[in-house]
Amino acid sequence: MKRYRNGEIWDFESQAPPGSVGAGVVLGVDGGTTSTVCVCLPASGPLPEPLPILSRAVGGCSNHNSVGENAAKETLEEVMAEALSKACYSRSAVRAVCLSVSGVNHPTDQQRILEWLRDIFPTHVTFYVENDAVAAMASGTMGKLHGCVLIAGTGTIAYGFTEDGKEARAAGAGPVLGDWGSGYGIAAQALTAVMKAHDGRGPQTKLTKNILELLNLSSPDELIGWTYADPSWARIAALVPTVVSTAEGGDEVANKILYDSVQELADSVIAVVRRLRLCGEVADGKETFPLVMVGGVLEANKRWDIGKEVVKCISKVFPGALPIRPEVEPAVGAALVAWNRYQYTSECNGVREADSPRISVVQ
Amino acid sequence: MKRYRNGEIWDFESQAPPGSVGAGVVLGVDGGTTSTVCVCLPASGPLPEPLPILSRAVGGCSNHNSVGENAAKETLEEVMAEALSKACYSRSAVRAVCLSVSGVNHPTDQQRILEWLRDIFPTHVTFYVENDAVAAMASGTMGKLHGCVLIAGTGTIAYGFTEDGKEARAAGAGPVLGDWGSGYGIAAQALTAVMKAHDGRGPQTKLTKNILELLNLSSPDELIGWTYADPSWARIAALVPTVVSTAEGGDEVANKILYDSVQELADSVIAVVRRLRLCGEVADGKETFPLVMVGGVLEANKRWDIGKEVVKCISKVFPGALPIRPEVEPAVGAALVAWNRYQYTSECNGVREADSPRISVVQ
Repeated sequence: MKRYRNGEIWDFESQAPPGSVGAGVVLGVDGGTTSTVCVCLPASGPLPEPLPILSRAVGGCSNHNSVGENAAKETLEEVMAEALSKACYSRSAVRAVCLSVSGVNHPTDQQRILEWLRDIFPTHVTFYVENDAVAAMASGTMGKLHGCVLIAGTGTIAYGFTEDGKEARAAGAGPVLGDWGSGYGIAAQALTAVMKAHDGRGPQTKLTKNILELLNLSSPDELIGWTYADPSWARIAALVPTVVSTAEGGDEVANKILYDSVQELADSVIAVVRRLRLCGEVADGKETFPLVMVGGVLEANKRWDIGKEVVKCISKVFPGALPIRPEVEPAVGAALVAWNRYQYTSECNGVREADSPRISVVQ
Repeated sequence: MKRYRNGEIWDFESQAPPGSVGAGVVLGVDGGTTSTVCVCLPASGPLPEPLPILSRAVGGCSNHNSVGENAAKETLEEVMAEALSKACYSRSAVRAVCLSVSGVNHPTDQQRILEWLRDIFPTHVTFYVENDAVAAMASGTMGKLHGCVLIAGTGTIAYGFTEDGKEARAAGAGPVLGDWGSGYGIAAQALTAVMKAHDGRGPQTKLTKNILELLNLSSPDELIGWTYADPSWARIAALVPTVVSTAEGGDEVANKILYDSVQELADSVIAVVRRLRLCGEVADGKETFPLVMVGGVLEANKRWDIGKEVVKCISKVFPGALPIRPEVEPAVGAALVAWNRYQYTSECNGVREADSPRISVVQ
């Protein structure tokens, strides 16, 4: 059994009486660059609404590209231990774990994490190790991996799943490689428009006044220093609400930036749906599929609703797209993937069958 | 007198007999992020061809934004001392200095450098402290600051000068702020096109095969790791020759990227020329003005000649643009600015008049 610097991670198991193992529990982890959340659900079904969340634990970054392999592992192990401890269960009660972690892009990443999970948990536990898009998808479909999820926050990615286990992605390669529909992409285009208006390459725009006021700068020239003073993409992306409100005020330049970004976001979903034939076997068919929409860019709009415009664009090509705005957090989505997977395994073993929670479809 | 860590910078003055002060010398410095070059010319005119370059010294980075104020100062002082030492002159022989240094963008930057120069040189010396665009402009016009210079290497900027001393610039705000005609911009668009072809958002392109072969990668997915492994803009910009050769091979995607970039570069020149009325007092007039073209993006082309296409674009709007490809290096341009400035000062003081070297205009 591995021990990290805080060797007491699993010590609660020998101190507190474990909860009834009974039907056991499942764990879902949403591991991101900002934070990592673990949720514990009962492994037995059917699950009532609201979901009987037994516990929830929060940790720091678990993206191995950002903090390195060891720190990522430690964070993941800590949040799982804390969630189990809060729910008064020991590892022997765990039936399935879904780790949905950003930075997991290759089978080699999955393999490394799987080996380490097998080192921690009993041999009968089912594991599911995936990209963080899985948790986002499942948070909209209550655990079922079928359809397409569009994530648009600081970055953007479209990720699709067929019912028979095929996957495809589009975009998600970061700002240098052209994610222009992301929060960063929208804000960078707005900053560019301000520079172009300033030096005579582009039309005048109210973005100048609005962005300079927000940043407390007196001239577009000062934007150069502001931009390169800190390389954080999130800091640039934080300008999106100003771009949206400027567009709402009727500014043509801001409106063009938003419409172009809507098209970029829609294009990434369309590419995934087409490759996976989520719309049916006919090219550009009309079959229905869930389209889960996640992230600040798709959510935080009022009159100018980026998410709604993206859905409009996609629906012109695929009228069967069923847009879903998740009502639960991604970690719950991951826990529901673990729950579904456990039901499936039990069913294959002839134990019993359980109803999947209802999928909530919103317009 | 200030002394830096190598206190012996000016020690040669007390050891070697100084060269004849006579009419004295001028210094031109081209200070960049990669290297800093100082050239020493006789202060007396007219200058014959080829130019009587007395000495040349090379140092490291002198952009204060990159290496800090003290290291930048030290590099500048060292290259000037070395150039004077090689030419066997002491500081008392210096009549004028033109420092054309990248990172000098505000009057406060100029002021700081001027104060420090006054601390080093005798009081009668004329100083001219400017952005590195000045050296590039002057390298094409043999020292005369009139016209527009377009620099397109890893980055891009258009910089213009009127005969009565007005200046204007366009672009030059780096990749985040939309310098899409730069080497970095062209290469980033090519990488984006490869990602889009790979995930189904864009048309297939031969850029995929050519770029992956160049970088020794087996799949576009690996471009993500390659791109973010090193944040150097120059490393990305080094892909430009591959984009050009792919366009020459008839690839439509590569051709579109180059034509879009040509338009971006032309737009920056057009904006500067229009603001400064370099084409005459009538809007979009036909008066002639020098258009100096500098940098790898404008030079290293064969069949697909980016520089030629940019000139075509500009000439449609301003038929009076006279394209110049400099035959001397920017440091010589800076030295010629110092030389011109000294002639002007002498003339004002009634000393004598000198012919300016001929401006070399190429098509």
